[in-house]
Amino acid sequence: MGAGELNAILKGSVVERVLSTYGVRSYFPKGIVAQSQEAATLATRANATAGVALEGGHYMTHPLFKEFGTLLTTDEMVGYAPTGGNRELRQLWHQDLVRKNQPLAGKSFSLPLVTGGLTHALSLAGELFLDVGDEIVVPSPCWDNYDLLYGVRRGCKIKSPHLFDEDLNFTIGNLRAAIEEIEGEKVFLLLNFPNNPSGYTPTPKEMEEIKDLLVHFANQGKALVVVIDDAYYGLVHTNEAYPYSLFSLLCDAHENILAVKCDAATKEALVWGFRIGFITYGSRGLTAEHYGALIQKTVGAIRATISSSSMIGQSLLLKVMQGEGYHKECERVANEMKERYKIVKRAIAQEEGPLKPLPFNSGYFCAFETEGEANVLREVLLKEGQIGSVALEGNLLRVAYSSVDRDLLEPLIGEIYHRSRELWR
Amino acid sequence: MGAGELNAILKGSVVERVLSTYGVRSYFPKGIVAQSQEAATLATRANATAGVALEGGHYMTHPLFKEFGTLLTTDEMVGYAPTGGNRELRQLWHQDLVRKNQPLAGKSFSLPLVTGGLTHALSLAGELFLDVGDEIVVPSPCWDNYDLLYGVRRGCKIKSPHLFDEDLNFTIGNLRAAIEEIEGEKVFLLLNFPNNPSGYTPTPKEMEEIKDLLVHFANQGKALVVVIDDAYYGLVHTNEAYPYSLFSLLCDAHENILAVKCDAATKEALVWGFRIGFITYGSRGLTAEHYGALIQKTVGAIRATISSSSMIGQSLLLKVMQGEGYHKECERVANEMKERYKIVKRAIAQEEGPLKPLPFNSGYFCAFETEGEANVLREVLLKEGQIGSVALEGNLLRVAYSSVDRDLLEPLIGEIYHRSRELWR
Repeated sequence: MGAGELNAILKGSVVERVLSTYGVRSYFPKGIVAQSQEAATLATRANATAGVALEGGHYMTHPLFKEFGTLLTTDEMVGYAPTGGNRELRQLWHQDLVRKNQPLAGKSFSLPLVTGGLTHALSLAGELFLDVGDEIVVPSPCWDNYDLLYGVRRGCKIKSPHLFDEDLNFTIGNLRAAIEEIEGEKVFLLLNFPNNPSGYTPTPKEMEEIKDLLVHFANQGKALVVVIDDAYYGLVHTNEAYPYSLFSLLCDAHENILAVKCDAATKEALVWGFRIGFITYGSRGLTAEHYGALIQKTVGAIRATISSSSMIGQSLLLKVMQGEGYHKECERVANEMKERYKIVKRAIAQEEGPLKPLPFNSGYFCAFETEGEANVLREVLLKEGQIGSVALEGNLLRVAYSSVDRDLLEPLIGEIYHRSRELWR
Repeated sequence: MGAGELNAILKGSVVERVLSTYGVRSYFPKGIVAQSQEAATLATRANATAGVALEGGHYMTHPLFKEFGTLLTTDEMVGYAPTGGNRELRQLWHQDLVRKNQPLAGKSFSLPLVTGGLTHALSLAGELFLDVGDEIVVPSPCWDNYDLLYGVRRGCKIKSPHLFDEDLNFTIGNLRAAIEEIEGEKVFLLLNFPNNPSGYTPTPKEMEEIKDLLVHFANQGKALVVVIDDAYYGLVHTNEAYPYSLFSLLCDAHENILAVKCDAATKEALVWGFRIGFITYGSRGLTAEHYGALIQKTVGAIRATISSSSMIGQSLLLKVMQGEGYHKECERVANEMKERYKIVKRAIAQEEGPLKPLPFNSGYFCAFETEGEANVLREVLLKEGQIGSVALEGNLLRVAYSSVDRDLLEPLIGEIYHRSRELWR
């Protein structure tokens, strides 16, 4: 379908109200890819559609790759994947979303599309829903790449309400104030829990408050795009943290709220460098036809940025997800993170100094507000203590305990406090 | 370095004159990634920088992946690759460019950056050098995705001068006229040889004419960005076709010409679905410092779109390129394409009908101008002949002989002509 037909389908829905000028133009043409798909089933005699080298119907590639034969055929490695991803993988990821998010049961949302990693999903959301000069809301502290994605690249102005109040308790007050300041009717908001860099996930009550706040604005007639970055989904280390994705609360919350779930196999499935992410849409008012049109626009944007995502990554992910040990292995790593979390939590409780830990209960990280410039502490730790950490936003030091073995964690925290006291006390 | 510092370095060069407004803003911040890189060498005691799950310094992933142990470690599969790509692979691709392009010997150009496939490289060039509303030149016939990449996505107006005259002979006259019509001082031009869909590569004399034409405009003071899509590089089937990349002629042709080589392992190295491409810059006036600044901007754009490219793809590509059989295997496939080309050429010579073959001497394809609507012929071929082909631009039928076995090619061409005569004679 052309852009005009897709836009006609989306007319009157929240999607129409939040699309960027590119989003309005975007479509997936009936060009080479669509014609090749059509031929795949019908061209039984000779299929001269695709720009690939085949012999006897198989890709002509290196014999070396046959060493992987126990797990994958060479075609599963070097073949082209469909623009929107391997259908079986998309369906499996969809099932798994419901399995992992009990509140999603029975709710309707789109079939996930495969993207070239989570960043690519975030980038697609930016293309489809943001224009140059738009004011958007991205609570702070946050991943440093959001600024490149939306500020530098899309040319948006980013409002950064603090997730924590002056006593470092979670608050939605700043978020409310930031959204109230947005002048247009469209509100683009990005939320990321477990939060990078703080490691905080709101409690069930706080999550409900977030939902209620957004519904409040939706009731006022605002059109909200809420991008949910679920990079660290599933890594919840205490009973207080809400164990499900915010997407499960927002995907049917209100007809004026479009929830956009960006997640990835990256951390959830332990395959960081595969670069396999997903983008999934949910909104109370949307029909299957609406989702279909929005998916066509997104597939057009995938083709216009990377053509398609890694086939070998998708094939291997599918194999490993279909295998017996998959959930157990993911759980093993999540449990290891929980053990490390406990050690870090205990170690911090024993320390005093010019560092204030932000609340944390989930994910890979903890972070400290530093009395002086965080980068000074980072450099001392690196050069004198041979310890790697990350300085952010002037006075934040992020510590990825996910990448440090258990027995090193207590001395690590001790050293960080020790060096901070040397610097600032 | 910040954008301001990078722009200061590029001041006065052709790059400054052709950057888009985003290109001007783009930079690679000293954030999490840069700090992690710094820590990689120094943090020998504990490295708590990166958002990954490590145990004993190795990624915590699925035991299943150990089955690949003969070829890759699990870290080489699931680890994060550097934003701009594996350094060893970039250097090897650079060496290989010189090996494959004899005229490049001794010329200076940038170290290739790894991209998420060739489309991603083309997309990055669009981001860095194009603004909404820019008029650009993309000769026709061409790959249908250019329209999505630059027309739909970047919002540019595309001028499409024909590569062939009315008698279907190659001409640069239309290209000259199109460039003359561009009003601003910046000219963005995309050239793709072997051409998709025609399968044509200019002769050495014609390539020199293209270069001379562009130098002529450069002498007039125009600033030219020439994007060279080398997707089908190396697949030259006759002695008349120029056997090297146009990049080797343009990378030092003139101080007002920035040559941007977009190529990929996709077809050249027989790994279509790996999604590993490269972007390489060359211009007569540029110093190592200029290239460094342009690379920083490009790396920033990579991080803002996909974070990084597939690690498993890069690792496997590196292994296979370092292996003994690599060149032989690529040659074997190129030779097979040449044999198929000869069969197709002979078969067409025996036919008559309402189809005019475009000149072809290289690549994966041949294409026919059809007397009636090409899509009608495509549908008849598919539904009645079980033959897959692609209809483009109204009256072009593209045939990918690359994906059809030798013994099927003569009957395939026969059937295409037969059906076309049934339709239109």
